[in-house]
Amino acid sequence: MRILVLGGDGYLGWPTALHLSAAGHDVAVADNFARRGYDEELGVESLVPIATLEERIAAWAEIAGTSIKPYVGDLCDGPFVHAMVADFRPDTIVHFGEQRAAPYSMIDQAHAVYTQTNNVIGTLNVMYAIADIDRDIHLVKLGTMGEYGTPNIDIEEGWITIQHNGRTDTVMYPKRPGSFYHLSKVHDSHNIEFGCRIWGLRATDLNQGVVYGADTEQTKLDPRLATRFDYDGVFGTVLNRMVIQAVLGHPLTVYGNGTQTRGLINIVDTAECVRIASETPAAPGEFRVFNQFTEQMSVRQIADTVAAEYPGECVLDEVDNPRVEAENHYYNAKHSALEDLGLKPTLLSMTLIDHLFEVVERHKDRVDLSAIMPTVHWRDTASELPRAASELAKT
Amino acid sequence: MRILVLGGDGYLGWPTALHLSAAGHDVAVADNFARRGYDEELGVESLVPIATLEERIAAWAEIAGTSIKPYVGDLCDGPFVHAMVADFRPDTIVHFGEQRAAPYSMIDQAHAVYTQTNNVIGTLNVMYAIADIDRDIHLVKLGTMGEYGTPNIDIEEGWITIQHNGRTDTVMYPKRPGSFYHLSKVHDSHNIEFGCRIWGLRATDLNQGVVYGADTEQTKLDPRLATRFDYDGVFGTVLNRMVIQAVLGHPLTVYGNGTQTRGLINIVDTAECVRIASETPAAPGEFRVFNQFTEQMSVRQIADTVAAEYPGECVLDEVDNPRVEAENHYYNAKHSALEDLGLKPTLLSMTLIDHLFEVVERHKDRVDLSAIMPTVHWRDTASELPRAASELAKT
Repeated sequence: MRILVLGGDGYLGWPTALHLSAAGHDVAVADNFARRGYDEELGVESLVPIATLEERIAAWAEIAGTSIKPYVGDLCDGPFVHAMVADFRPDTIVHFGEQRAAPYSMIDQAHAVYTQTNNVIGTLNVMYAIADIDRDIHLVKLGTMGEYGTPNIDIEEGWITIQHNGRTDTVMYPKRPGSFYHLSKVHDSHNIEFGCRIWGLRATDLNQGVVYGADTEQTKLDPRLATRFDYDGVFGTVLNRMVIQAVLGHPLTVYGNGTQTRGLINIVDTAECVRIASETPAAPGEFRVFNQFTEQMSVRQIADTVAAEYPGECVLDEVDNPRVEAENHYYNAKHSALEDLGLKPTLLSMTLIDHLFEVVERHKDRVDLSAIMPTVHWRDTASELPRAASELAKT
Repeated sequence: MRILVLGGDGYLGWPTALHLSAAGHDVAVADNFARRGYDEELGVESLVPIATLEERIAAWAEIAGTSIKPYVGDLCDGPFVHAMVADFRPDTIVHFGEQRAAPYSMIDQAHAVYTQTNNVIGTLNVMYAIADIDRDIHLVKLGTMGEYGTPNIDIEEGWITIQHNGRTDTVMYPKRPGSFYHLSKVHDSHNIEFGCRIWGLRATDLNQGVVYGADTEQTKLDPRLATRFDYDGVFGTVLNRMVIQAVLGHPLTVYGNGTQTRGLINIVDTAECVRIASETPAAPGEFRVFNQFTEQMSVRQIADTVAAEYPGECVLDEVDNPRVEAENHYYNAKHSALEDLGLKPTLLSMTLIDHLFEVVERHKDRVDLSAIMPTVHWRDTASELPRAASELAKT
């Protein structure tokens, strides 16, 4: 199968491209290196050093004997997207190519506008390219569990059947997302569902939980194949960040009382879910939604798990929640569709956490502790950016 | 009350500004004249000649002795929006300032991207200006009944209480809109609801039905106060278009079998609904939704009503539906909230239709018959624009 991975230089896009290539698919990646640019802007870096895309692709050719074709460009550039799809003629487009951090979208007006424009228009351009060139191309789009918010009823996989005043309908699951980033994904989902109706597009929307983990089978093969590992208050996801805090002897920061519950998924399963979705495509005209996570935990449970496993001293610190989100809420999200298609979940375990401790230990001299605390506040319209490590060094 | 009307030079924005001014409010209007630009682009014109905004404002000052302050600029220009809100310091912002035609958004990729960017980012900028300057400013935002689509259950006003697996929640009404334009309004609604949650914004989302009519009490006072009247296949709404077809002896074109049912509202009621919503604002943090229409009719019923009332010969012509939309569907949309607040509906009547016949009769020499038929097709990714009248004249 020919698979084009958009955002293929990113935290998840790169390991997924490797996983698909290792599974025998003919893979291309597209990126505009926006994610590397955010590092420059915020003055932070991936904990694990990462090679350039060119070096990565060369390393994979050397190790696996397989070439991955790179396309460098911006999805907001319609003619670029059209030319790329016409050139590679994929069977499947896997779309990771969006700004993916809630706090980044909440920094200020410019970042909110950037996030919604970048994500929504990029995806519109991808949809138009498919509709123009070949409506049989399967779009596998990364969404987020954060689109749903925390409703007081069970979260279904994208659609819900409602009885109301004696009548019944199956409708898109009502969403109440928690940031301008999460909103951009809700907008995408609505746009894509419409594309399925009018153009007969085939689409799979993967509403992914919070991802943790540093490695996949392929990224471990060579340091040049490593993927990024973010721990800063803007791009770092909760579990990865807490592992770093533990190793550095920093309190594990819990936002609010920590009762917020989220779906979690290991990076290895992300890549595998995308493979499964790609190999069993949606039908023409179908807008299919999978909830892509394997277990749900509260933030406090995550902190307790990390603390219990860490060999040294480890304390928790409740900090004011910078977000506006429910605490002590009901949360029961379905996630059986991918398992029905064959996913074997990699659940959070001692082994996994031990491996993360080891990764962090290896690179801990690269950590900028000042970047860990949250600096973006949902109730404000403008937040101070984290101070660049280089600037701090000067003070 | 100080009220800023965004899109105040448009079909509904202008009469609403006059209505609010006549009701004693201190009114400003903002516009970038995008709507006049679409006329140039499409080579069509309002059936009723319209004065410039400057002439309109001068005429109103002369007739009513009241001044309306104009702001000329683009809502996608964040600093302009911020400066305007800081300068006028409104109590209420009435937001008509969006691209408002479904067919326009479906012309091609560029028009889809333009519509979503223009509408979503413009509204984001307005939200940020309010959040920055004064969170007490009430945002009265024009949405559309087309956001809901045609669900098989009753359409409630914005929110719905769902029972599911033995639990209950009140959630945003699930929507399934029918064009990239309608989708832009769904995106807006989600963004605004979030603004109410994080910033305590007070917002009223007016999901308006299909508007018909040419005049309000104020626009009738002087030809310089007239509002536009569109009949072309891109911007013309169904009833207005059919009235023109009747007067010109053209068959009334019904898309598909005409069983599509829509909510309708007279232009007079639009202005009055906005006045009512403005004078009884939403509470801080409240995202309030009103369905703004007064009666529901199928496209065929509208055609039959126009045909029955027209004194001359009148035939119906079923044309292939250029849109992708349900026919023979269930439709029962609630619309009691505005009536509960005092709206006295102006229902479609012989008198109203007779008045429209008379308006059209007066200006029928201005009609370009070639602009009436639909030229934009939902299943295509690019449609030919209506040919400009001037170009046709040359052939």
